[in-house]
Amino acid sequence: MGKNEKKTITKQAVDFPAWYQDVVREAELAEASEVRGCGVVRPYGLKIWELIKAELSRQLEADGVENVYFPIFVPLENLEAEKDHVEGFSPELAVVTHAGGEELVNKLAIRPTSEAAMYKTYAKWIQSYKDLPLRLNQWANVVRWEKRPRAFLRWSEFLWQEGHTVFATEEEAREEVKKMLDIYQSLYNFLAIPTFAGRKSESEKFAGAVMTLTAEVMAKDGKAIQGATSHYLGTNFAEVFDVKYLGADGESHWGHQNSWGLSWRSVGAVVMVHGDDNGLRLPPNIAPIQVVIVPIYKDDSSRDKVLQYCRQLNDSLKDKYRVKTDLRDAQTPGFKFNYWEVRGVPVRLEIGSREADNGTVTIFRRDNDSKEDIALLELPGRLEKLMAEIHANLYNQALAFSEKNIRRIENWDEIGEESGWFEASWSEDPETERQLKEKYGLVSRVLLAGKETEAPKNDKCFISGKPAKHDWLFAKCY
Amino acid sequence: MGKNEKKTITKQAVDFPAWYQDVVREAELAEASEVRGCGVVRPYGLKIWELIKAELSRQLEADGVENVYFPIFVPLENLEAEKDHVEGFSPELAVVTHAGGEELVNKLAIRPTSEAAMYKTYAKWIQSYKDLPLRLNQWANVVRWEKRPRAFLRWSEFLWQEGHTVFATEEEAREEVKKMLDIYQSLYNFLAIPTFAGRKSESEKFAGAVMTLTAEVMAKDGKAIQGATSHYLGTNFAEVFDVKYLGADGESHWGHQNSWGLSWRSVGAVVMVHGDDNGLRLPPNIAPIQVVIVPIYKDDSSRDKVLQYCRQLNDSLKDKYRVKTDLRDAQTPGFKFNYWEVRGVPVRLEIGSREADNGTVTIFRRDNDSKEDIALLELPGRLEKLMAEIHANLYNQALAFSEKNIRRIENWDEIGEESGWFEASWSEDPETERQLKEKYGLVSRVLLAGKETEAPKNDKCFISGKPAKHDWLFAKCY
Repeated sequence: MGKNEKKTITKQAVDFPAWYQDVVREAELAEASEVRGCGVVRPYGLKIWELIKAELSRQLEADGVENVYFPIFVPLENLEAEKDHVEGFSPELAVVTHAGGEELVNKLAIRPTSEAAMYKTYAKWIQSYKDLPLRLNQWANVVRWEKRPRAFLRWSEFLWQEGHTVFATEEEAREEVKKMLDIYQSLYNFLAIPTFAGRKSESEKFAGAVMTLTAEVMAKDGKAIQGATSHYLGTNFAEVFDVKYLGADGESHWGHQNSWGLSWRSVGAVVMVHGDDNGLRLPPNIAPIQVVIVPIYKDDSSRDKVLQYCRQLNDSLKDKYRVKTDLRDAQTPGFKFNYWEVRGVPVRLEIGSREADNGTVTIFRRDNDSKEDIALLELPGRLEKLMAEIHANLYNQALAFSEKNIRRIENWDEIGEESGWFEASWSEDPETERQLKEKYGLVSRVLLAGKETEAPKNDKCFISGKPAKHDWLFAKCY
Repeated sequence: MGKNEKKTITKQAVDFPAWYQDVVREAELAEASEVRGCGVVRPYGLKIWELIKAELSRQLEADGVENVYFPIFVPLENLEAEKDHVEGFSPELAVVTHAGGEELVNKLAIRPTSEAAMYKTYAKWIQSYKDLPLRLNQWANVVRWEKRPRAFLRWSEFLWQEGHTVFATEEEAREEVKKMLDIYQSLYNFLAIPTFAGRKSESEKFAGAVMTLTAEVMAKDGKAIQGATSHYLGTNFAEVFDVKYLGADGESHWGHQNSWGLSWRSVGAVVMVHGDDNGLRLPPNIAPIQVVIVPIYKDDSSRDKVLQYCRQLNDSLKDKYRVKTDLRDAQTPGFKFNYWEVRGVPVRLEIGSREADNGTVTIFRRDNDSKEDIALLELPGRLEKLMAEIHANLYNQALAFSEKNIRRIENWDEIGEESGWFEASWSEDPETERQLKEKYGLVSRVLLAGKETEAPKNDKCFISGKPAKHDWLFAKCY
């Protein structure tokens, strides 16, 4: 009954994408659907998303954001109204041409994002400066047709939230764009994931935005995952959809708009940041099961004693933790250990005759494979500390890994076959970014907020040798 | 400052559908979108749905149901596999023919319901009787193209939950179908809405089902609203999608399936059951704001005193109730009274100098227009009772109204120009139902559970004169 009796998970070092696919399947997070590019999210995977959603909802509500629901359909002409926006999203659109048994005169896109679905209506709602700020959020499904789908990270349909806000001034709007990024970073902290946050380059920003802020995450193979983005749209959409207001000055002004979103890619990030060769490792905050109790017995006499002890334990914990006792009779303890390790349950309590007789509990930590025996009386206090320790350990491991895998380079020749992220002084010239992508498959990920006001370490661009503007982070990405 | 200074809501007696439309708009629940047939649900309306959803989620989770998410797209060939199902839904389908810049070889329907989207995958998950029962639920948007849209009740896109379950035996499946109907009835009780629950006729049952149970609601114009349905699908879909299991007997058996759903039509039902000529009346359980505090002052000296008193009041209530203090300075108290009455806030606290000086509170109840003055100290106890009283009053009014508007008839000539529901002994012959619909616009709504085992009061069918089987309820419907 070795830990990996089912050798169904590829080693990370052997083939990381295969490892990811294996974990998503074996942990029963999700699987491919009949519709190419779309996935079926199973209860265990969806629960993780629901827990992420609950925490972000709490933060958004506390910040005064209200929820709204707009139609999934966007008139194509709306999408085409903002030039950069339509260029960015056209290749990914799914289009409804027939409905109710008839061909539609006006074809409808399925929302790839809802700027073009919402802002004509916003224009009706906003008359004067007294109607501002308008801060609304939508939890919804969106569709962006993917040529190379990947579970959670790139499915043609995904669930997300998209905030859409309007302010009287650029200053207020830019302040909120930054604040939403802070909220996303705090959300990723909640997932025990460190983020690298700052500005996107001109080529990588949102189609239609003036500026995009991003929280980037490093996966365990050294690629980048875009964790969440917050866009200052300026008056680009306002001018197209007529979002204007009568100011206190009696004049008409364009509204300054933001949009910001986080999707169930965050579930994929949790897997890719915390997972190991044995499967998932979940931070307690979003573990569908935080504590699993596994009874161990050899015969009928110990069985009754052990199960009763487990039942009492379960009852004593269930108000405070998401706890489950694995009562399956047909499975061995070893099978169950492996089963719940693959699923990343942070804490396992192993209960045998010895524990029942002595009034003790054997605790196994998924994050570091350690075991300890403690008296039942000490369990409540120990568990509370343990949850915090596990969270901190996962966070610190991820942070150490990320920092170790960011390499400073002065010239793009140094990239070679190396993986991980690269810090380099860059001219910010889009043409150099195109070259970098072509030659190494790397793109700029983020100009960290702190680097925005600093001079670059090298005054020459690592690609072109022309004057560098800032020190940026570059990586391959999902 | 009369109550209805803004005479923007049509009287119910004048034109009920216009009244409904006015209330939905004036209470800022929702409005028409740019896409014909689809609506925009505004924060106040969406919050009502979110509160309904939270309560139903709680009940489903307590019953052991888990959530899942399947793609919004259904291969057309899946939909076409079950004959009755495709006949029922074909006229309402929206179809994606182009995606990612190309014409799709296999066209995709947007789910009108997810039987055909889910059950091929169910077939993979279910191997043996040990995998049963499988009880999953999905919160999702679905699309059924509507020729005659109506806010919440008939939009082309709507939000709902759909449960899809598989059992080893017909007996277990039929037991759950009934249990889910009980859960829906208890959910409507939560909304202070009485339901009339039982079986649908052959013509009115779900396309593809063996039997449909329904919870019907009476709107204030005497029409029926289908509140929720629970379907026993038999093995109809199982045989098409190969949902079978290896039994303990070593033989292969078809799974017995159910599906059951409740949508945001329930928000429409709340409006149509409880609303009056002044707007919404919300039961406290789902009121986005349960208590609104309106300060009343004439000059600056009373202003400070009153606002401070309001602030303390707000603070003392906010942990227990969804409470809001209307601090708008530009609006009169009379405007605010009307504003919150239109929005159906159950309890208003009016706070003027007198109240602040005497340490009292003037309470206004939206459900019966009554006012009372009580000492601040008594407020917590009074409010708790009040919420229960308001709920009970709304429920009892709706029940009395519904019962008063069900008329027993022996012959369909008695229908004439009468509104409301009719109870009649019926042969259950689909041809008579067709005739009834054509002549009076009425359809069978439900055979109440209690009537299933009773002999009909009249042994002759009220339409054909042939032998009657049971006493059914008939009505016009939304």
